[in-house]
Order: sequence, then C-alpha cells, then structure tokens
Amino acid sequence: MPALSLVLLFSAIICCSSTLQPVNTSSPNIIIMLMDDMGWGDLGVFGQPSKETPNLDAMAAQGMLFPNFYTGNPLCSPSRAALLTGRLPVRNGFYTTNAHARNAYTPQEIVGGISKDEILLPQLLKTKGYVSKIVGKWHLGHRPQHLPLKKGFDEWFGAPNCHFGPYNNTVRPNIPVYNNSEMLGRYYEEFKIDKKTGESNLTQMYLLEGLDFILRQTEAKQPFFLYWSPDATHAPVYASKPFLGKSQRGRYGDAVMELDHSVGRILSQLRTLGIENNTFVFFTSDNGAALISAPNEGGSNGPFLCGKQTTFEGGMREPAIAWWPEHIKEGAVSFQLANVMDLFTTSLALAGISPPDDRTVDGLDLTPVLLNRPSTVQNRPIFYYRGNEMMAVRLGQYKAHYWTWSNSWAQFKSGINFCPGQDVPDVTTHEQREHTMQPIVFHLGRDPGERFPISVLSREYRDVLSRVTPVVDQHRKTLVPGVPQLNMCDLAVMNWAPAGCEKLGKCLKGPASKPWKCVWTH
Amino acid sequence: MPALSLVLLFSAIICCSSTLQPVNTSSPNIIIMLMDDMGWGDLGVFGQPSKETPNLDAMAAQGMLFPNFYTGNPLCSPSRAALLTGRLPVRNGFYTTNAHARNAYTPQEIVGGISKDEILLPQLLKTKGYVSKIVGKWHLGHRPQHLPLKKGFDEWFGAPNCHFGPYNNTVRPNIPVYNNSEMLGRYYEEFKIDKKTGESNLTQMYLLEGLDFILRQTEAKQPFFLYWSPDATHAPVYASKPFLGKSQRGRYGDAVMELDHSVGRILSQLRTLGIENNTFVFFTSDNGAALISAPNEGGSNGPFLCGKQTTFEGGMREPAIAWWPEHIKEGAVSFQLANVMDLFTTSLALAGISPPDDRTVDGLDLTPVLLNRPSTVQNRPIFYYRGNEMMAVRLGQYKAHYWTWSNSWAQFKSGINFCPGQDVPDVTTHEQREHTMQPIVFHLGRDPGERFPISVLSREYRDVLSRVTPVVDQHRKTLVPGVPQLNMCDLAVMNWAPAGCEKLGKCLKGPASKPWKCVWTH
Repeated sequence: MPALSLVLLFSAIICCSSTLQPVNTSSPNIIIMLMDDMGWGDLGVFGQPSKETPNLDAMAAQGMLFPNFYTGNPLCSPSRAALLTGRLPVRNGFYTTNAHARNAYTPQEIVGGISKDEILLPQLLKTKGYVSKIVGKWHLGHRPQHLPLKKGFDEWFGAPNCHFGPYNNTVRPNIPVYNNSEMLGRYYEEFKIDKKTGESNLTQMYLLEGLDFILRQTEAKQPFFLYWSPDATHAPVYASKPFLGKSQRGRYGDAVMELDHSVGRILSQLRTLGIENNTFVFFTSDNGAALISAPNEGGSNGPFLCGKQTTFEGGMREPAIAWWPEHIKEGAVSFQLANVMDLFTTSLALAGISPPDDRTVDGLDLTPVLLNRPSTVQNRPIFYYRGNEMMAVRLGQYKAHYWTWSNSWAQFKSGINFCPGQDVPDVTTHEQREHTMQPIVFHLGRDPGERFPISVLSREYRDVLSRVTPVVDQHRKTLVPGVPQLNMCDLAVMNWAPAGCEKLGKCLKGPASKPWKCVWTH
Repeated sequence: MPALSLVLLFSAIICCSSTLQPVNTSSPNIIIMLMDDMGWGDLGVFGQPSKETPNLDAMAAQGMLFPNFYTGNPLCSPSRAALLTGRLPVRNGFYTTNAHARNAYTPQEIVGGISKDEILLPQLLKTKGYVSKIVGKWHLGHRPQHLPLKKGFDEWFGAPNCHFGPYNNTVRPNIPVYNNSEMLGRYYEEFKIDKKTGESNLTQMYLLEGLDFILRQTEAKQPFFLYWSPDATHAPVYASKPFLGKSQRGRYGDAVMELDHSVGRILSQLRTLGIENNTFVFFTSDNGAALISAPNEGGSNGPFLCGKQTTFEGGMREPAIAWWPEHIKEGAVSFQLANVMDLFTTSLALAGISPPDDRTVDGLDLTPVLLNRPSTVQNRPIFYYRGNEMMAVRLGQYKAHYWTWSNSWAQFKSGINFCPGQDVPDVTTHEQREHTMQPIVFHLGRDPGERFPISVLSREYRDVLSRVTPVVDQHRKTLVPGVPQLNMCDLAVMNWAPAGCEKLGKCLKGPASKPWKCVWTH
C-alpha cells in the first residue's frame, strides 16, 4: 500500500514542523456536509417552527450563516456534480438535451456519469496531500468508471444511487452499498430500510464512518477532506429507532433530528481531538425540499416558492452554515450570493491550490467573506438552470425569470405538484412559459416568496433589466456547453453485478444492452 | 396630585424593605411590547432571510422563544382587547353581530369601545402599586369614556386609532395624538408622517417615551407596567431618517429595523439601570402580517398560510419572546400553546394578583413555563375566531377548521387578496364555507403551512376528531358571548374635538349624529 507510507512520511513532516505552532489557516481539514432534499426552512436557525436542530443552530451561532446560498441545480445529481467540479452542470455535462429544460439525474438505467474530462475536488486536493473520503450518496454515475475512487476519493462508504426500492432483483436490482471499491451488500437486503416503520440504521453508519475517518486522519496527522453525504431526508425518509417518533414533524422530522445529532457528534469530535481550529466545516443541501413528498416525507422551504425540481427559490436556495472556530467570527451572517460551486474553489483556496485554468470555473473563493477580510468577492450573478436552459438569474436582490415551469399539466393532473398550496399567476406555470422578451422580475429582499412581480411599466423594472440584460447576454454568449452525459439509458447498465458481488455471491444477470434516449418528464 | 404622594409613600416602603435583598420574583416590572401587523416571519430568529433584527434575535438568545404563540383575533382592536382583558373578544364584546364571521375594529366612526364592565390589566396591577403607561396605539375606542386613562393606565403617549390619513379635516379628521388625557396634535399635522418618503419620527418618540417612563419609575422605585405599542409596521409604514433605505426589505424592513433598534435600547436601559433581573419583558404582535400591503408595506408570515384578517396560521400565529434575566433560562424554546390573553393572567401572577373570579378568563398563567418549573400548564386549545364565529381550533399539533374564508369573491376580484400566491383548494375559500359536519384537519407539526388536509378516511382523522369534538362542544356550550360593542357607526363620534383641542385651537365641528349599523366586509 504505497499511499500509506507516503502518508506517514508526509504526516511526519507536518508533525515536526507544526507542533506547537500557532494555528495555520493553510491546508486545514475540510468537511462538506451535504444533505439530501433538505430545505432552507428545515433548520431552527432558518425558521423551522419545530426548532429541532439544536446542533445546527449552535453551529450557526459559532459560525457563519449564509441566507443567500444556492445550489447549482434543483436536482441531486447535477447539484452534486456542480459542487465537486465547481462548474455549472451545463458546463460539466450533467444535463440532458433530450428535451428542453429538463431535470436529468442518475437513475440506475443511466448510461453516463461524470465525464472523464472533469476534474473533481478530491483529485486536486490530493496534490497537496489531502486524503479524501465520501460517506453516503455519490450520484455521479454508478458504472465502474464513474465511481468515487476513480475520481479522486481514497475511501467511500455509501451508495451510488438513491435508495429507491425495494426491488425484487429481477426487473431492477437493489442499489448496492460500497465499502471503497467493492460492494458490501444492497439496500433493503444487508442494509435495511423498513419503509413501513421508517427504521434504518444508515445515518448511524454514516456517522460512524465519518467519525472513524476523522479519527484516523487525525492520528495519522494527515490533512483530510470528508464529503459527508447522508440521504435520510430523501424519500423514503428514515431514522434509527432512538429517533423514530421523536420529532414534532413526523418521520421527516425524525430524520432531520438524527442528522442534526450527527452533525453535533462530528463537531464535538473535532473539539475532542483538538482539531476544530484546523478544520473548515460547511453544511448545506443539494436542492430544495421535495414538496411532492410532503408533508410526511418531504421538508420545508420556509417562506420560499415551490421546491425541488423548480428554479424558484424553494428549489434552489439552501440552508448553509460555515464553521471554523478561531477563523470564522461567531454568530456572523453573510449576505454574499454564493453557491455550492464556491465550495470547490474555496476548498482549493484553503488548501493553497489554484483552480484549473484550462476551463471555466463558476465557483468563487469565499475565503475573504469567511475570514472577514476586506471583501474582494464580486457581487456575482446566480444562474438558475433546468437542464439545458437558463431559466432565471439573480443579480443583487433582483431575480429575473426568463422561463417558468413547475411541471406539465398532465403530471399536475395526475397529482404530482411541485408547488402545493402555492399559485402565482404566470409564474408557477404548468407549461414551459417563455418570458425572454419580458422577464418576470422579483425583488427577493421585499418578496422572498416570489409572489409580487415588479410592474413592467415601472422605472424599477427598466433599471433592473438594464443591469441584468448585459449579464445574461454575456453569460449566453460565452457559454460553451459540455457534452451532455445524461441522454442515454439502458437497462443493461444497472447495478446487476457491482465489483465485489462475486465474493458475496450477489451477482445478478441483467438484460442485453438496448439503449434508448432517456425520457425526462420535468 | 394625590396619586404622587401615594407613589412616594409606597416606594419608600419598597425601598427600605427590599434594598440589598436577593432578587425577588414577585412584583417585577412588566413590559409588554406589542407590534402592529408584524408577522411571525419578520424576525431573524423566526427565519426572516434578511436577518435584520439583531436585538430581537439577541433577546431570544437571552430569553425564551414561543414558536406556538397566538393572538386572540386576526385583527388589531379585538386582539388588543383580548390581551388587556385576558378574554376572547367574543366574551369581552370586541366583535360584531352585524353579519356572520366578520372582523370588526375601531375606526373613527365606531360608536363603541371597550365595555365599562371589562376589567383591564392596568386596573388590576394598580391594586399592587404598579404605575402603568401605554405608549403608542390604543385601539380600544376613541370616545372619552374609552380612553386609556379611564381604563387603568396612569400615562399615555400615543393615538387612539390607526394612523390612516392624511385627511383634510372636513369629511373626517386626522387622528389625534394624546399625552395622557389631552391631545397634543394630530397625525400628518403636528406629528408628521410623509407617505411619499415614509419618513416619520414617531418610533423615536415612542422609544423616548418608553425610556423616560422606565427611568422615572426606577428612580421612584415604583413597580411599573409599560405597554409599548408602536405602530410603524402598520401601513402606511414609516421609519425615521437614519433607518430609511437601510433594510434589504424596503420600507417595511426599515420600520422593522427601527423597532428592533428600539427594543435593543429598552433592554439595554434595563441593564444600565440594574433592573433587568426585576423586569419581565414580552415581545409579540397583534396579528399576522398584512399581506394586502405586501411587499412594500406588509411583512412576512414565514411558512404560514395567508395573513391578517384570516384564521389561518399566517393570520394568528405571532412572533413571541419572553426575557427576564436570571429567571428565564437563556436560549430556551417553549412549545407551549399560548396566546396574548395569557399575558394578562401571567402578568397578574407575577404581580401576585388573582384574576377576576366573576367572569371567564381565557388566559393561562405561563409562569411555570417561563420559570422552567415542573409544568402544570395544561395543553389547552387555541380558538380561532372571526367576529362571532369560531372558525377553527388547535389542540396539540392538530388544527380543525369548521369554517374557512379568506375574503369575498367581489373583494378578491377587486384586488384585495389576503393570501397572495397561495391557494389551498377548499381552504383559502372566497365564500364562507362551512365544514362543521366534517372539519378540515391539519397537522401543524408536519404541515405548518396548512397545505395538506388529513384524509377524512384515515384513522388519524377519526382519532383527532374524537378528541377535538368534545373540546369544541364544551366551548360552544359554555360560551356566554358578551354584548357586541362594534355594531354601530356614526360620523358624529369621530375625533372632531378630542380633549385638549381647545387649548391648541384645533377643535373641529362634526356632523349631527346619524348612527348606522357598521358594514364589516370581511
């Protein structure tokens, strides 16, 4: 195991040069905690009436809150690809061109995954001696060439796809759970999720895997990157027995409580190990709460419009807390417009690494904001994409919608509603409505819920448009879309025989390859 | 001035018996800060994305937050009458029987006011030597017999009605501003509100009046009750010059910032005077944010449905913070179902006074909750009234709607919308819809936004109903409605010639009396 000896050598150097030195802001450990379908309104500190997240609320009180933090896409796979590449999905290929403005992701039948040409955060961190682990959901492709250990991670405990199921392993296999490069078992088989009771120990496993990794790297005096990505708040939501029935909010709230408890355990361990001043922690979510699963298995987007799958605020504004004692001022709030792609660039900056210069990187370095240095971070736009279409843009407090869509009439009439109880005329539309000639504009400070379009006859509207239009034109003109990776599907590529299945006697036989163009309905 | 000598005598006794004694929890000073049309979602600590209430957020961090705190009515006058009498408006007479389920209040043309038979909080506190002052809006009737100094307050600086206007003093007079029992001038005349710029110094005046009262009573060693009731967040919203344009939320946010600043000044003065451990402070609002005035002049109800005027959560759930250093545990959260009427009973309990036993009092004593004593406070129901009709009831996490109404189709079509951007079928109805045979039930823990009615076919629904029904039956059976005070209107009773107008040369002549049954449209 050559990596280990390198680790020991490297840690010895760190050991001798850094003992008793003042805390160094360079090369801190990095922990990104990425929740699954957790909404902005699910945390006490962001206004959840049940106030059941004492650890996250304390994390905010000790760190910095970002009320204007966004994902890169209102759906899990592209959002996660954006985080790890620092690039919009339309650039990194995590989108589809099969139809206009469709949310595509990585179900089992997807042929593609993260492109071999994309450079991921752990690959870059490795150049500075970081050891990286992903715990939980990957979702950047499940075929062998797409898995985390092929993309810079040194360790993995978790699953490549969502925990949908149970399946009977004939038409479609249950999702495998990996330990590093080999499967350990499958969801609903070795890794139980009781859909009836909601009981599963997965969050506890993910917690222990995280704690163990932190402990080992600390003992090895090795800088580390932990990408902690539990999925208990994605339907079907689950919690372990001690948390079931404990929330005021039902099963979804139970899952949130267990995740909050886990966050507390992780931060507490950092303090116990004495590495809290040398570990940058960021908590956020991959997209807005899935209101189609609410109220029993979906969360809350607080005062925002709609949720997951949509480019309204409820779909893309995320809970976000940065924590780094002695570096980030306690109880700070930053109104910086920021997003998950900034975590890529910021992590690189913390590690002293320049972002790749051979491609467009959308992420900004937030360290001036985090460290309260005279800010040089530009007041950059936030782009809201759905597949291949820029649906909206935010500049300062203003958001302009160029296209609106919740979902189709056909879906809506069948009971799929991304905006339950909400209806903003001309905005929460059930057909793809084009507003490119006259965008719908909201002031998100006065109107975070996107309920009151600014009159197109007003001076304010003209002023906004005069500032937004050149930003959008520039973006469109210079955008070079990546090769779309999420166009083709094939039942043959499903998780029939993941690596390691032979040892376990759990290899399945899939059908012959018969690829088709995936149908993305919204 | 006989009252003064009594005060001095009394304070001398307090002085000599209490000097250097340990802090006593009996007879603390009481400050109730009641905002006007401020919504649950307007405070940072309750999830306002702009996070512009640092003083209120700090107050919560030092005190106790009540996420389940309610008003007694979704409109200002009856809510305020409920607070000061401890009784539901349907009992204390602050309602109308002119039409079914209508919100009535005290505009200038109202003939009635608080009934002479009602006992108000300051009247009772006086029996224990408290000196009481109201600063700001009264709204319990503007005719001489209804004014604060006739109902137990020793001092008043403020106005009897809303600051609507400006009027030209012919068809209707501008609202007077009183200092104690005589007017000092009128809104828009001596007391400027610039509706165009939003500038007014009224909040600053109300702040100084409050600070001055606290200082004087402290110097006099006199227990006091300050009812601090500024109205800057009621449309037309206003702020003083230093706050105008400072918020991310426009003028409404400016007003909130100035009120937050004032709260900070008041708490800071309590500390400076060394009386913080002997002063119980409670912050709340009279009803939900007025969404008809949003986004420019109306606030936010966070994740809740609709707003002012409605019996949905947005209309009646209020921001609420209790603060009493050394007595209330720092950073506590109480999920107790509580309401403004509890402030009546709790204040009496703090002062060592029993509530009147010759009438039904709806308020409960919250001191066991506040002081973290083994709670004996019952898990009582919350009743949601609109005029003479109980529209809904909350019991535990469940809320059952017996009647639903936002406003009429005619109003809605004319642009008056109490639920902008929100539409829950069968719930946000535009006619008074009766559900008494089969109430619509929500679980407010899972579904605080009242978007997902519980299926009437479910066991949960039947269980809820079996518990709620006897509570409602009991309430209806034992309810003795008070004589409605808000049925009659008359232009002759308007503020033509308030006491003190002669000295100022500001008496106006009104029309002859010609009473009519007031028309309450929603």
